[in-house]
Amino acid sequence: MTAAAKFIVVEGLEGAGKSSAIALIKQYLQQSGRQVVCTREPGGTPLAESLRTLVKQVQTSEVVAPQTELLLMYAARMQLLCNVIKPALAQGKWVLADRHDMSSRAYQGGGRQLDEAFIDQLRTAVLGDLRPDLTLYLDIDPAIGLERARQRGELDRIEQEQLAFFQRTRQKYLQIAATEPNIVVIDAGQTLEQVQQSITAALHKALG
Amino acid sequence: MTAAAKFIVVEGLEGAGKSSAIALIKQYLQQSGRQVVCTREPGGTPLAESLRTLVKQVQTSEVVAPQTELLLMYAARMQLLCNVIKPALAQGKWVLADRHDMSSRAYQGGGRQLDEAFIDQLRTAVLGDLRPDLTLYLDIDPAIGLERARQRGELDRIEQEQLAFFQRTRQKYLQIAATEPNIVVIDAGQTLEQVQQSITAALHKALG
Repeated sequence: MTAAAKFIVVEGLEGAGKSSAIALIKQYLQQSGRQVVCTREPGGTPLAESLRTLVKQVQTSEVVAPQTELLLMYAARMQLLCNVIKPALAQGKWVLADRHDMSSRAYQGGGRQLDEAFIDQLRTAVLGDLRPDLTLYLDIDPAIGLERARQRGELDRIEQEQLAFFQRTRQKYLQIAATEPNIVVIDAGQTLEQVQQSITAALHKALG
Repeated sequence: MTAAAKFIVVEGLEGAGKSSAIALIKQYLQQSGRQVVCTREPGGTPLAESLRTLVKQVQTSEVVAPQTELLLMYAARMQLLCNVIKPALAQGKWVLADRHDMSSRAYQGGGRQLDEAFIDQLRTAVLGDLRPDLTLYLDIDPAIGLERARQRGELDRIEQEQLAFFQRTRQKYLQIAATEPNIVVIDAGQTLEQVQQSITAALHKALG
């Protein structure tokens, strides 16, 4: 009677509106009777949330090497996959994630310009053949997104990067979205109502 | 006038006597006028020490996936390499490390029986072609080593593994030592005096 549970990811820069989008998608899925597990990266398990704190906090005593940052993201992702995402999908629950692997490729690959081969090796080792069934990438001008993030409060270590970092990150997001399947680009510069209509339309088209 | 600085690692199971060995080696190196930076894994930088705490503490709320453990070890190693080991060697300082990459291969590869290809990918990505100039592996019967560790105090999450885990770890240590260069096996089951003589002899032979 029920179709297989799906893995849905929301991606985007700071201030793109991921939280609102997730609330909307969750409601959409639950209205059609699906059980939904919401999660986020980095984080989503006790250990992974501790890693989130470590990787995002401003380090006064040392530089966080970009490769260390990448490895921590994959360590947190591995823990979340093993303890939350894979068990939920196996139980027929839908998984709705605030960020996933595309973030590492965009932020550490695009923003930090880390070696693609290094990232690909980690992706292969950690993800195997698991891919989201649908990714909604909320595209926003970094200057606008960062201003929104700034109004919400203190910026974390990664959010404190220069604008050029986020421009590279956005370019990588768009490049991946243009070349890989099951990724829908949502123009997050529209009004909230228009964004929500775009998201609902994308869900309707992808999930029926 | 001075030869290039070298990277020396002490490896072994819990209770093998690594701390005493390191104190002896440090004294040996300093007596011949070398500047020595001592470090340990996982750890050795503020962030890496936080990772050490996370990975070793007993988790009451969830299982630490073995692959997560491995990724955290390499994240801590990357941070230590970037911020301590490589800069020290570049400045002509000798580096003396309590554990390094051989530990991951022995504990996560041997003990946890993780896929060798996964470990090799991480090794290549994180270490590049950096290898210790000399590794002293202190070989001890796990039952004896664990009893010594137990007498020192509470066992951490990894130390609480079953004896068979440490037997597999030891086998992997011995296998690596038998097939790769620049690794000296020290019989840590001897008296302290004999162990110290063996270490001094190994240093003398390797360093002159």
